[in-house]
Amino acid sequence: MRTHYCEEITEDLIGQEVTVAGWVASRRDHGGVIFIDLRDKDEIVQLVCDPADSEEAHKIADQVRDQYVIVATGKVRPRGEGLENPNLKTGKVEIVVSELKIENTSKPMPFDLGDERVNEEIRLKYRYLDLRTPKMHKIFRLRSQAAIAARNSLAEMGFMEVETPVLTKSTPEGARDYLVPSRVWPGEFYALPQSPQLFKQLLMISGFDRYFQIAKCFRDEDLRADRQPEFTQIDVEMSFCDQEKVIEVAERLIRDIWAACDQWEKLPAQFPRMSYDEAMEKYGSDKPDLRFGLEMVDVIDIFERCDNEIFSTIAKSPKKNRIKALKVPNGDNIFSKRQMKGFESYVRKFGAQGLGYFQMKEEGLKGPLTKFFTEEDLQAIIDRCDLKVGDVVFFGAGEKKVVLDYMGRFRLYLAEIMEIIPEGEFKFVWIVDFPMFEVEEGKLKALHHPFTMPKLNEKGGLDYEEIEDLKSVAYDLVLNGTELGGGSIRIHKPEIQKEVFKLLGISDEEAKEKFGFLLEALEFGAPPHGGFAMGFDRMIMLLAGTESIRDVIAFPKTQRAQCLLTQAPSPVDPEQLKELHIRLRQRPVSAE
Amino acid sequence: MRTHYCEEITEDLIGQEVTVAGWVASRRDHGGVIFIDLRDKDEIVQLVCDPADSEEAHKIADQVRDQYVIVATGKVRPRGEGLENPNLKTGKVEIVVSELKIENTSKPMPFDLGDERVNEEIRLKYRYLDLRTPKMHKIFRLRSQAAIAARNSLAEMGFMEVETPVLTKSTPEGARDYLVPSRVWPGEFYALPQSPQLFKQLLMISGFDRYFQIAKCFRDEDLRADRQPEFTQIDVEMSFCDQEKVIEVAERLIRDIWAACDQWEKLPAQFPRMSYDEAMEKYGSDKPDLRFGLEMVDVIDIFERCDNEIFSTIAKSPKKNRIKALKVPNGDNIFSKRQMKGFESYVRKFGAQGLGYFQMKEEGLKGPLTKFFTEEDLQAIIDRCDLKVGDVVFFGAGEKKVVLDYMGRFRLYLAEIMEIIPEGEFKFVWIVDFPMFEVEEGKLKALHHPFTMPKLNEKGGLDYEEIEDLKSVAYDLVLNGTELGGGSIRIHKPEIQKEVFKLLGISDEEAKEKFGFLLEALEFGAPPHGGFAMGFDRMIMLLAGTESIRDVIAFPKTQRAQCLLTQAPSPVDPEQLKELHIRLRQRPVSAE
Repeated sequence: MRTHYCEEITEDLIGQEVTVAGWVASRRDHGGVIFIDLRDKDEIVQLVCDPADSEEAHKIADQVRDQYVIVATGKVRPRGEGLENPNLKTGKVEIVVSELKIENTSKPMPFDLGDERVNEEIRLKYRYLDLRTPKMHKIFRLRSQAAIAARNSLAEMGFMEVETPVLTKSTPEGARDYLVPSRVWPGEFYALPQSPQLFKQLLMISGFDRYFQIAKCFRDEDLRADRQPEFTQIDVEMSFCDQEKVIEVAERLIRDIWAACDQWEKLPAQFPRMSYDEAMEKYGSDKPDLRFGLEMVDVIDIFERCDNEIFSTIAKSPKKNRIKALKVPNGDNIFSKRQMKGFESYVRKFGAQGLGYFQMKEEGLKGPLTKFFTEEDLQAIIDRCDLKVGDVVFFGAGEKKVVLDYMGRFRLYLAEIMEIIPEGEFKFVWIVDFPMFEVEEGKLKALHHPFTMPKLNEKGGLDYEEIEDLKSVAYDLVLNGTELGGGSIRIHKPEIQKEVFKLLGISDEEAKEKFGFLLEALEFGAPPHGGFAMGFDRMIMLLAGTESIRDVIAFPKTQRAQCLLTQAPSPVDPEQLKELHIRLRQRPVSAE
Repeated sequence: MRTHYCEEITEDLIGQEVTVAGWVASRRDHGGVIFIDLRDKDEIVQLVCDPADSEEAHKIADQVRDQYVIVATGKVRPRGEGLENPNLKTGKVEIVVSELKIENTSKPMPFDLGDERVNEEIRLKYRYLDLRTPKMHKIFRLRSQAAIAARNSLAEMGFMEVETPVLTKSTPEGARDYLVPSRVWPGEFYALPQSPQLFKQLLMISGFDRYFQIAKCFRDEDLRADRQPEFTQIDVEMSFCDQEKVIEVAERLIRDIWAACDQWEKLPAQFPRMSYDEAMEKYGSDKPDLRFGLEMVDVIDIFERCDNEIFSTIAKSPKKNRIKALKVPNGDNIFSKRQMKGFESYVRKFGAQGLGYFQMKEEGLKGPLTKFFTEEDLQAIIDRCDLKVGDVVFFGAGEKKVVLDYMGRFRLYLAEIMEIIPEGEFKFVWIVDFPMFEVEEGKLKALHHPFTMPKLNEKGGLDYEEIEDLKSVAYDLVLNGTELGGGSIRIHKPEIQKEVFKLLGISDEEAKEKFGFLLEALEFGAPPHGGFAMGFDRMIMLLAGTESIRDVIAFPKTQRAQCLLTQAPSPVDPEQLKELHIRLRQRPVSAE
């Protein structure tokens, strides 16, 4: 139906007859000659319908409206002088139309395509029109390129793509499952997978050696701005490997994807590593954004000597508590008094009792707290924080977890209001040496998942004084303060797996019921293995520089898990429910 | 952990120290020296543990049992004369082990790996062991290669991979949907897609031009041997195309996949085409197996003149009825009397009233029916069917649909018992010119789906005398008697879509409720478009030459839709159901 795509209509074709097809992007009448901007998948070309060239075509052009689908045939010629459009690949030429056909008409658009101020609800309802913009085409072209690059990269490294089931059993990620009632087995349910975790471990036990999949995963969670009920991850697992080998594979994968998206030159020569403890102490986060400084410094030893009982008491338990300093260079000149007050109420939202600060003046440190310190200790603070005149330094003091959390958030908050986060940079960091467990509400929990290999002593056993000090062989890849992916070496010996379950307070019975098949599989010659998963949607967001996950998913759900286009979810026929052996607890409140 | 995979241990490495890792495939003790066959993903290598070389390694080798996971280091040396194994890539060498480590032990296998006589239930329960065989590794390597080849082929042709939702609304394929209760919207449900049909059409309306996806699809149907609740299809759609263009893309895709699987040379230079009518008349099937002959011939005109009222009455309605001849060359010498009787009871199962036949003897046609025919008409039958002495020709007579069906089945049945179907051949054929509708239980039904474009007259309208004669622009790709895939040009004009719905007796209301969003989308500038879908599991079955779909799916369900490995589906916590606003109609009968 076409001889060329629009982007191919350039000076090389001058004098040739071509046929193009696409949508009317705009149409204007200049002194009886109709100019049409025709858009196809990637580009616009200008059509000229002059009754002098073809009366028939001009007549049809006169009926054409925005977003009509047309097919146009004509000769390519240079545009008149001064009429060139340098923004288009086709900007130096136009097509003199000799034949024009309307393939389909269109009602007026319900909103201006590409206008980002349009209410998102209406854009999602007419998603097929929202997708008909160069911006969206570009994002999905990028996504497709990235997916193909990922697959080819992994295939070259000897990985085999294996599809794991979507109708399966509850997986142990701990989020809420989507359930699917079984028709054949009354009262029983499949679960949609939260990840292929157990299946990929089983494939290693099958000797598949190197597995990958770009897998759909499902979590029925309350949705935040960057979450969707279904999401996509690049899922990788390999045998007879250690952490170094897995990291090597992951870095090569990233490099190949970035290269396919023309972002190769923005990658660093090395992806730096940082221990979990260092990340927490310096940035108050296990996904530090390294695009800017504002690192925290420990001052608990100096505060121990101060004359304020609150601080000195906190400082007496340096394992349990923290006193952290966060210096803002030149902050004294940047922040107003009012802003300084606002900072305190910001951190209070996250559990801070207050927010101390010193200002570095010509004459030395100033601030309400100075009076509690000796001259030597004030000098120690200046030295420790490397303070220059005009700097301001904030202090957080209290229980370790709370202080690191609010000071980490405060750091991000400051960076944002100071607008010091550079655009278009990729700052990667591997976070390593994670704790195996964390305590949540007094209960021990696996920080990653319960199949993560703890760091073993030389005899292959678990060694720790306090259980919270036990590290695991887990690693996260962080990009610009976002967790891009992560993984671990897994437990391959049944006795270690049992010990971990015991520490987690998972009974034999519960373990057997939830993942008995994995425990059993470990008894039949499981190889050492490990892997990682990377959030593919998030990766595309970062590559495309877009803010919303809904921009990188063709048909996304709203934050209330609805598809405004198809009106899913929706009520179903009572007969269907009967076949599935279920009934409703209440009548549907129609989603519409 | 290893320096080489087993397959790399060849004569080139003689004298070098290597480390290999994998599973103990077998172990034998010859005069104090222990020989271990070590298997990794693809190959076996022989380890020699001689106490003269390393007492320590020999001691460990003595503890090793089948399927233990070991890592062995040692020097590569040639095997002794006469001890080479030509079946292995590594068959000329062995590794003299200096260091041996047991990475994991294994309980004895619950069945002999690779023994195909083992009950399938036990193989599926221990699927991870069933997959640990060279045969299975080969199939999944093939599947992975085919998937990557398909993606690269389509990407090269300018197709963009787009993921469509899994949590969506009921699609109109007409099979039973899997439903997913919504937690956020009480009483409402998502459906898992039976295909991405509507979404891919919407992507065309979005101007994506060329879309593909290797998509998971779901059907809650009673399972036959070659069906699974979830299956995978290569899904393709393109704009501004006609049937020729789509077929061209599909053929190139097949060629690229076959090439990646080293089957290129088995493809024909051309994929032949056959009209639906010809396929039905000659083979009694719209998916004819062309690996053998046994074509049917029409003899209704000859039978019209015969002296048997039953036949002549049937023959008087040549549009409604059929009388078909199926010649078996030399059949008179192949089939026993008893077999001939058996044939009749075979076709009776499929609605035949009887099965007539003639035998071609030296002296002419013989058989119970000859008496009803004149000499001229018997000669006409001989000529029409090109009968030689020893041939036998069968007749089916009656209502067209019934006759074509049972004669088509009979043809396949004969080919099977005669064992004339060649192995390892790929006989493709495109079936084209499908009817738009078929009548089922007195009701008009879309033969493909209701979005299929009917053949239009020059004015773009529908032209037909009888509605059943109306053809559609649909095409199926058949391989060895199996429908590998199919597709159509879709309706892109709302007025045609409405007319088709009307013919199908789908009310405006029903159409709006089921796919209102598609109908609405057609109003906003839908381009001409079409595409196809190919069954990927089936394609791999044919490429791998395997009989069961469960051989090409890593973690398949049984015919009762159960996963014997994970025990899905399974009962769930009543709390979960409460959150989903549903209750059970009956207590679960545990699947175990």
